[in-house]
Amino acid sequence: MPDRLPFDHLDEHLARAAWSRLAEPDDRAANRLVATLGAGPALDWLLHANRGLFPAVPAQPPRGDWRTAVARWTPRLADLDPRRELDVIARRGGDLILPGSPAWPAGLDELGESAPMCLWVIGARDPATLAASSVALVGSRASTAYGERVTTDLAMGMADKSITVVSGGAYGIDAAAHRATLSVHGPALAVMAGGLDRYYPNGNSQLLAQVAATGAVVAEVPPGTAPMRTRFLSRNRLIAALARATVVVEAAWRSGALSTAAKAAELLRPVGAVPGPVTSAASAGCHRLLRESDAICVTDAAEVAELVQPVGTALPEEPVVAAGLLDDLDPEQARVLDALPARGEAVFGAVVRSAGLDEVSVRAALGFLELAGRVTRDGSGWRRVRVRRG
Amino acid sequence: MPDRLPFDHLDEHLARAAWSRLAEPDDRAANRLVATLGAGPALDWLLHANRGLFPAVPAQPPRGDWRTAVARWTPRLADLDPRRELDVIARRGGDLILPGSPAWPAGLDELGESAPMCLWVIGARDPATLAASSVALVGSRASTAYGERVTTDLAMGMADKSITVVSGGAYGIDAAAHRATLSVHGPALAVMAGGLDRYYPNGNSQLLAQVAATGAVVAEVPPGTAPMRTRFLSRNRLIAALARATVVVEAAWRSGALSTAAKAAELLRPVGAVPGPVTSAASAGCHRLLRESDAICVTDAAEVAELVQPVGTALPEEPVVAAGLLDDLDPEQARVLDALPARGEAVFGAVVRSAGLDEVSVRAALGFLELAGRVTRDGSGWRRVRVRRG
Repeated sequence: MPDRLPFDHLDEHLARAAWSRLAEPDDRAANRLVATLGAGPALDWLLHANRGLFPAVPAQPPRGDWRTAVARWTPRLADLDPRRELDVIARRGGDLILPGSPAWPAGLDELGESAPMCLWVIGARDPATLAASSVALVGSRASTAYGERVTTDLAMGMADKSITVVSGGAYGIDAAAHRATLSVHGPALAVMAGGLDRYYPNGNSQLLAQVAATGAVVAEVPPGTAPMRTRFLSRNRLIAALARATVVVEAAWRSGALSTAAKAAELLRPVGAVPGPVTSAASAGCHRLLRESDAICVTDAAEVAELVQPVGTALPEEPVVAAGLLDDLDPEQARVLDALPARGEAVFGAVVRSAGLDEVSVRAALGFLELAGRVTRDGSGWRRVRVRRG
Repeated sequence: MPDRLPFDHLDEHLARAAWSRLAEPDDRAANRLVATLGAGPALDWLLHANRGLFPAVPAQPPRGDWRTAVARWTPRLADLDPRRELDVIARRGGDLILPGSPAWPAGLDELGESAPMCLWVIGARDPATLAASSVALVGSRASTAYGERVTTDLAMGMADKSITVVSGGAYGIDAAAHRATLSVHGPALAVMAGGLDRYYPNGNSQLLAQVAATGAVVAEVPPGTAPMRTRFLSRNRLIAALARATVVVEAAWRSGALSTAAKAAELLRPVGAVPGPVTSAASAGCHRLLRESDAICVTDAAEVAELVQPVGTALPEEPVVAAGLLDDLDPEQARVLDALPARGEAVFGAVVRSAGLDEVSVRAALGFLELAGRVTRDGSGWRRVRVRRG
């Protein structure tokens, strides 16, 4: 084990890059140590601790003791080389963003001790700007044609409103979200579970390169980190924290997308769920959210936009439906029109008995309906005027 | 206008039958008058009022004055003949049920001044027994194959639990609900908007006759009353009041079924909505309920049964899903298994670095995983044991 580190560990960039390698995502002990001592001094502390000296820390670790935490970080100490990782990201045109920088998305700070140490970024736009007005569209890798179609509609609708679509770059719903966003030149943000030295999954690497070329691709782990299952779960908390709202488009009963939704709810961000056929297992997770959580049922882009934009700035349009025959009538007029036979005519007394209203009311209603061109009378009675329907 | 009525109007059956003819459904003034004076004396009062004498009533009508109400009831006074209507229902094997009778469904009383005057019934079973454990399955006439399939599944599931399926006898979802219930000999209850002298719509008359033959068909209006549009809306409040819970299976953005749901909610009965494809206009009303009301998302019979049966008596089965690879592991074990390469083997130190855990924890986790048959070791390293998946 090294006595000293082969880089300027008091440089904040290098120190945080180092911590993003030493500690797994969402390591609260590492976060607390760094928050208490600073990232560089925390590395000093770790070197001392590693030699059996445990300098006093003015804080307790969230779980267990510092000794366990040190034992967890130490195995990665020997190969630590953040300059190399910064070189890798720079060669790919990327950068390392630290908390407090203007490019740092403020939403991440709401994660508290679960906030990432730093953000590795490859992108044409900075994550803070992208995240400012954004919605996460997430869902199953095993998506259906229905789910992909809805995702496409929603993503295009977000682009139309200049709302960034955040997703995880996976196959299925994630890919459909990114693809649709790019197709209409909307703002896109992809959050990776592994290092940005290569985009995972392989089949989406070109898609993700395009996201980087116009929006941004980010990760909290340094280049060279493999995307492991547990890191996908940690990654989901970043999606939830980056986006102003999270919408699950399609998800099976047990789907990682539900963890993103749960995290968003924990952060008091709006969560939307897109319903689907109850006969589709691919929508079971969405229905579960609707049943068991405060998730809001969303069915189109306007309803999704309502989640992220203050009410009033985005008024959803009422779906266009054919007006009902009785729609613009008051209850008594409706009842009188209703009381006229579908064909043929009825004398006044019959209309009165059939409507169950007094004569004065029936006469007034018939007068209104006649003026409106809905009924007509001849010598002996009243009849409906056939309305030509669109 | 008659000075006196051509029947024994102090007979409670005849008097209430007469009121069910004189006043339209949900006429609160009629209800208040009958509640205040009794049904027979209220007829006496109406005769007097009709001659310009307005005997004092110890109550105010809910809206307007008594004069307007009298003018509304009077046109039907001349032809009043409840004995004939009782004969009609008797010839069809039916009966008239009054509030307070053992066959009277208690749920109707919760309608207060909107309760029906009486219930015209044709059926093999009494409405009170049928309604005691019941759910309304309602929806659009313009149903889709999807909606009908789900309705069929839900109705059969209710029959299986001896829960009565209540519906309105209309085409579409209503008919599918009745048909499925009858097909498995479940308890069925149909609530009509018109008189029971003929079943409406015509195309469902055979179906409704079968409902009557094993369950019951009911209406609050006497034989000879046409099913008018406004009476369908009034009828919906009876469905909501009769059933312990209301489920909308499929409904357009503006659908009468939504009024049933609204009434059920007003009565503090559980309301369920079945989601469907967001691309289907036939589900837009269900999604509207999920968005805008407290309706509960229901996707199968178990979830519907939960609405009407106390929690604990009907435990929904968790959908059967394939167990995930990491499901039965604790977080550290999962992380260690995750850290092993998909193919090939890894030496202990590599597993430690990859997992981001201390050596003691990794050793313990590998030990557990080895005992569980999930990993194996040879001289140089550790490898996963391929799990054969079902």
